[in-house]
Amino acid sequence: MVYQEQIVISTKGNGDMHDLTDQVNQIVKKSGVRVGMVNVFNVGSTAAIGTIEFEPGLQRDLPDILNKLIPPSREYGHEQTWHDGNGHSHLQATWLGSEITVPVRDRRLVSGTWQQIFHLECDIKPRQRQIMVTVYGE
Amino acid sequence: MVYQEQIVISTKGNGDMHDLTDQVNQIVKKSGVRVGMVNVFNVGSTAAIGTIEFEPGLQRDLPDILNKLIPPSREYGHEQTWHDGNGHSHLQATWLGSEITVPVRDRRLVSGTWQQIFHLECDIKPRQRQIMVTVYGE
Amino acid sequence: MVYQEQIVISTKGNGDMHDLTDQVNQIVKKSGVRVGMVNVFNVGSTAAIGTIEFEPGLQRDLPDILNKLIPPSREYGHEQTWHDGNGHSHLQATWLGSEITVPVRDRRLVSGTWQQIFHLECDIKPRQRQIMVTVYGE
Repeated sequence: MVYQEQIVISTKGNGDMHDLTDQVNQIVKKSGVRVGMVNVFNVGSTAAIGTIEFEPGLQRDLPDILNKLIPPSREYGHEQTWHDGNGHSHLQATWLGSEITVPVRDRRLVSGTWQQIFHLECDIKPRQRQIMVTVYGE
Repeated sequence: MVYQEQIVISTKGNGDMHDLTDQVNQIVKKSGVRVGMVNVFNVGSTAAIGTIEFEPGLQRDLPDILNKLIPPSREYGHEQTWHDGNGHSHLQATWLGSEITVPVRDRRLVSGTWQQIFHLECDIKPRQRQIMVTVYGE
Repeated sequence: MVYQEQIVISTKGNGDMHDLTDQVNQIVKKSGVRVGMVNVFNVGSTAAIGTIEFEPGLQRDLPDILNKLIPPSREYGHEQTWHDGNGHSHLQATWLGSEITVPVRDRRLVSGTWQQIFHLECDIKPRQRQIMVTVYGE
């Protein structure tokens, strides 16, 4: 069985994080899948998806470490194509990754109590984001 | 067809690596799936899953580079929530990722001879870890 | 339904990137799957798979940032096992990740207009690469 639904969110620009766990759990419930997995995929190349303990400290720490290791700069080659100042956004998103696949059991995500599915905006301005959620199983 | 089984391991703290390849292959064999894929997911937010050549050198190099780029420190915002000194553990695990999906063919993982599935403990103390393995296919 | 096919490419060594999007879309079309997802997995431990805007600037920026953060060196522990100078290749590939799972809808990848599936060679010499593509869904 496959069930697919889209989540749409509005972000505030670089470093803005959303907790998608409840919405994904609701989609899993609607799908009727008891055991299987669910893939959560950000459509677009300047935002990331993953798991984290979704608490205020780490919501600052994750964007901070990304901006430290892959800093904003006009020196990226990407500037020569687009001149839009978001080369670091692409690199941050690509390195963190655009999707995650999480197991499903008893009609729910199998994730830790302090392990949530996050969406991280890496682009420099607010964006509307489409996130495709695909559940498969029995 | 979906088959799901849990692996439990005991880790020794930050930088401890386990090779899960044989256990995952056994679960694939038990599942009866001939062609498809298998998802290997760490339940919890301070350990990572991925692929690597599982040899002693890289078992040191991977934790070393993580601790170099995302170093232990009391300066992370995460400290203000929990005061437990493992902010870097969360960031290391999130950046490396909590899961991997590997193709299955002829009832076995399709992975390179020198490509194993690893579990990396990023937390600062020994932990018992649940790893959910979900096989899907025909 | 599960459909599996291999892509073979020849790479030019560290930093060489290939856009796999068209080939993966062709395999999705051949599979007959209308809705589901597709897993793209690099067989081997020194190359990476992910999504990026596949344009000339980022094709330089991604290898550059990898070589800056995880630089070539003879100091890695991996050298003591193999003496082949590609410790950084393993670490780069493991950190970026060996696979991606992308949703399928209307017999096509659901990815952004500027979001392509890339293969990145992290090894130091040209390699022939096997990439396993597994489509599953209905």
